[in-house]
Amino acid sequence: MSTLIEPRVLKGFRDYLPSTELARAALIDKLEATFRSFGFVPIDTPALEYAEILLGKGGGETDKQVYRFKDNGDRDVALRFDLTVPFARFMAEHYNELYLPFRRYHIAKVWRGENTQRGRYREFMQCDFDIVGTDSASADADIVLTIASAMQTLGVGAVRIRVNHRGLMNRFLAAQGISEKLVPVLRIIDKQEKIGPDETQALLTQEVGRPLAERIIDFVTPEKDSSKTLTKMLELCGKDDADAQAAANRLSEVFSIVNACGLGALVYLDPAITRGLDYYTGIVFETTLVAMPEIGSVCSGGRYNELASLYTTKELPGVGAAIGLDRLLAALEALGKMEQAQPLPLVLITNDGSVALSLLHKEAHRLRQEGISCEVFPEAKKLPQQYSYAEKKNIPFALLFQNMQGYQEIEPYLSKFPLRDLKERQTQEFDSFEKLVLFLRNFSASLGTTASSTEL
Amino acid sequence: MSTLIEPRVLKGFRDYLPSTELARAALIDKLEATFRSFGFVPIDTPALEYAEILLGKGGGETDKQVYRFKDNGDRDVALRFDLTVPFARFMAEHYNELYLPFRRYHIAKVWRGENTQRGRYREFMQCDFDIVGTDSASADADIVLTIASAMQTLGVGAVRIRVNHRGLMNRFLAAQGISEKLVPVLRIIDKQEKIGPDETQALLTQEVGRPLAERIIDFVTPEKDSSKTLTKMLELCGKDDADAQAAANRLSEVFSIVNACGLGALVYLDPAITRGLDYYTGIVFETTLVAMPEIGSVCSGGRYNELASLYTTKELPGVGAAIGLDRLLAALEALGKMEQAQPLPLVLITNDGSVALSLLHKEAHRLRQEGISCEVFPEAKKLPQQYSYAEKKNIPFALLFQNMQGYQEIEPYLSKFPLRDLKERQTQEFDSFEKLVLFLRNFSASLGTTASSTEL
Repeated sequence: MSTLIEPRVLKGFRDYLPSTELARAALIDKLEATFRSFGFVPIDTPALEYAEILLGKGGGETDKQVYRFKDNGDRDVALRFDLTVPFARFMAEHYNELYLPFRRYHIAKVWRGENTQRGRYREFMQCDFDIVGTDSASADADIVLTIASAMQTLGVGAVRIRVNHRGLMNRFLAAQGISEKLVPVLRIIDKQEKIGPDETQALLTQEVGRPLAERIIDFVTPEKDSSKTLTKMLELCGKDDADAQAAANRLSEVFSIVNACGLGALVYLDPAITRGLDYYTGIVFETTLVAMPEIGSVCSGGRYNELASLYTTKELPGVGAAIGLDRLLAALEALGKMEQAQPLPLVLITNDGSVALSLLHKEAHRLRQEGISCEVFPEAKKLPQQYSYAEKKNIPFALLFQNMQGYQEIEPYLSKFPLRDLKERQTQEFDSFEKLVLFLRNFSASLGTTASSTEL
Repeated sequence: MSTLIEPRVLKGFRDYLPSTELARAALIDKLEATFRSFGFVPIDTPALEYAEILLGKGGGETDKQVYRFKDNGDRDVALRFDLTVPFARFMAEHYNELYLPFRRYHIAKVWRGENTQRGRYREFMQCDFDIVGTDSASADADIVLTIASAMQTLGVGAVRIRVNHRGLMNRFLAAQGISEKLVPVLRIIDKQEKIGPDETQALLTQEVGRPLAERIIDFVTPEKDSSKTLTKMLELCGKDDADAQAAANRLSEVFSIVNACGLGALVYLDPAITRGLDYYTGIVFETTLVAMPEIGSVCSGGRYNELASLYTTKELPGVGAAIGLDRLLAALEALGKMEQAQPLPLVLITNDGSVALSLLHKEAHRLRQEGISCEVFPEAKKLPQQYSYAEKKNIPFALLFQNMQGYQEIEPYLSKFPLRDLKERQTQEFDSFEKLVLFLRNFSASLGTTASSTEL
C-alpha cells in the first residue's frame, strides 16, 4: 500500500464546513438583496491577472504579500489582493460597453500572504460596492444609505456610521502651513482611538510641535452634534477657504439626504475619521456596531477622484465602501444574532428496510414538489442511528414509514404520516398528506426568512 | 504624465459584465434551491492548496495544466483544477466532525492552463454535488433525481439522462478474456458518438480483432427499452456472473425509484456511456438536452469506490455529478429560455434639479421599504440623457418628479406620482403612493420568479 498524503490546508487558509458556509451564504444573500434594492448590479473579474495590472507602479506594502508567479506561458501573473484594483482595470477596459454612472457590487475572494500570527487569513472574501462616474452628494449619500440599509437587514442592532471629508483635514493642515505633514499626521489621527489621547498628543507634538498639536486635537474632537462639529471645522480651516466651504457643503447635503430618510441618528460627523493613507479625496466613512465597538469598522470607504488613472485617461470619479464579511459573521455569532437558518433538509425520511425504496423516494418527491426539503436515509439501519444522523445535521423532523409491508404496491398506499419531532422526541400522526405539508410549512415559516430571501 | 498600463485580462480569462453575471447568479440560485431541497449542504475549500495534495501521485494529463508555483514561504502550491480532489482531502480531514452519509454541493471556480484555441477558458466555475459514505441504490437514484429536478427547475426543456454501470462493461470484457483491453476499449466507446459507427468498428477491430469488435458493438447498442437492454447486457456478460448480476440489480433498483417518482421517461440505460478513463466503479450518467444534443453532456458523474484513499484509510464510497454551468448558460441563451430576470432596479427616480435631493432620496427610501428596487439619478441632467441611461441598464420605469418647487418642504409634499414606462414611452399618474407600489409589485410579479427564489 502506498503512503498516505497528510490531508491539510495551507497556513492561513481554511475550509468552510456546512454550518459556516450556510451562515456566510445567508449573510451574502441579504447583502445582495440590499445592494440590488439600490440598483447595484454584480460583476466578476478573474482571480488571476497580469502582475503589472494588479501592482501598478508597485513598491507598496501590498507587493510583498501578493501571490505572484510565472505561469506556464512565462507570463508574470498574480492573484488579486483586493477588488478595487481589478475594478479599476475593469472600468478602464469596459466603460464603453457600460453606462455611467455605474453602480456595481462584487463579492469574491482575494489572497494576501499576510502574517498569520495576528489571526489574519491569507484567503478571505471581500464585498465591495461603488458608484463610478459621478462626483455628487447623491452618490455619496447613496453609499451611506446602503450601509445603513444593509446593517438593518442583517439585524446587527444599532450602528454608528461616522463620516468625514478628507478635503476639510487637507485644508485645515494647509491653513496651518503644514500640508507636507499630511501623511504622518493622518497616520497618527487614524490610530488615535487605539493609542489614546496622551499618546496621540505626544506623537503629534513630536511631529509638528505643541501648539499645532493642540490645534489638531481640537480640530479632530467632535462637538455635541454634527452641525456644530462642521461649523467648528470650517472655522479652523479659515472661513474664506472656498475648498473647505465646498467640502462642508457636500457634507451638509449628504446629511440632509440621510436625515430625510429618517436615518440621521445613525450617521454623524467625526473629524477624526481619515481612512489613513488611502487614496480617498472626498467623503470617508466607517461603521461600528454599538454593541461591539471593539471589533472596529465593519464597513468603510469613501470617495476617490480617479479610479482608473493607471489604465485610462478617462475621468472616473467614484465613491464606495467595503464590508468586512468575516468580521460581521463573527460579530453576528458573538451577539447571538445569527438568524436561525432554515434546516437543510426539513425532513429525514427514515428507512427501516420494510418499505420499498421506490415508495420512500416517491414520498420525498411529493414533499419537494410542495416546497418541503427532505432526504431519504439511503440504507436500512436502526432508527436510533438515523436519528443520530438527523441530530448532527440539525434535521428537525423524521417521517417514520415502518412496518408498512401491506401498503407497498397500491395507491393510496399510505393513509397515515407519522412525523417525529426529533428534538421533542414525540411523534404526531397526520391523516393526510396535505395536513402534513401544512404543518411543515408553518414550522418553516415560524423560523423567519429563508436563506434566500425574496426582494423585488 | 506617466505611461498608461493597457487594461486587459490574461488569455483564457474573462470579466463577467452585469448581464452575464446576473444570468449566472440566477442559474446558480436555482441550482442551489434544488440541491438544498434534496438535503445537500454547501461547503467551500481554499483556491490554493499544497501541490502534493492536489496532484497526488501525479503524472496525469492534468499536471501540465495546473497553475503551480512556490509561495513566499517556499511552499510548493497550486490552484485547484477541479472540486473533486479538494473534496477528497476535505472528507479525509473532516469526516470525524461531520456525519455520514454526507451530501454536499460546491459551486466555485477552478483553474486550468488549457489550450484556449478550442474555446476553453482557463478559469471557470464548477458545480459538484455528491453523497459520500454509502454504497446504495438510494444514493445513486438521488443523484439522478437531483439532476432531473435541477433541469426542470432551470427550464431547459426535455432532457435525456443516460445511465450505465461500469461493472457490466468490466464483466463483459472479462468474459471475453480481454480485461487488459479495458482502457483502450472504453476510450473508443466513449467517443463513438463523435466518430460514428464505421470508425468505431474499425478502431475496435484494430484493438481486439473483428469478431470481438462486433460483439462489443452489439453490447453497447441499446435495445428498445432499458429493461430489454439490461437483459441483453446481462446475457452477454454470462448469466452466472454474480458481479454482473449485482450491477444489473443495482440498475434495476435505481430505475424503479426513478419510475416511482414519475421520471422514468427522462432516464434510460445506454451501455455506451462509460465516462472514459474516469475513476468510476458503479453507476455512471450523462445528461443531454433534447433540443441541443450537440453541446454534449450538461451534467455527468457516477459512483466511485474510494474517494479519499490518497489521504486516509477510511472507506468513503460516493456517488455524484458535476453540472457544466457555462454550457448550460450558453444553452439557455441559445434556446431563448433564459428567464426574464427582474430588472435592477425597477425604477429610476429622475433628477431635473427642481426637486431637493433629500426628497428624491426619501421617495426612494419609501419604495425600497415596500420591496421596490430603485435608484436616484445622482446629477441633474437632461431627461433624455437619464432615459438613455435607464435604457442601457434595462430599467423599465422612471418616476418623474419635476417642477415641484412648491412641494419641497412640507409633507404631504407629493400628491401625484408620474410613472413613465420607458419602453412604451407613456406616463401614467398615480394619485397615491400605495397605488404606485401596487402597480410596480404587479409588474414585478408578472416577470416570474425573482433572481433569488424562495424554497423551503
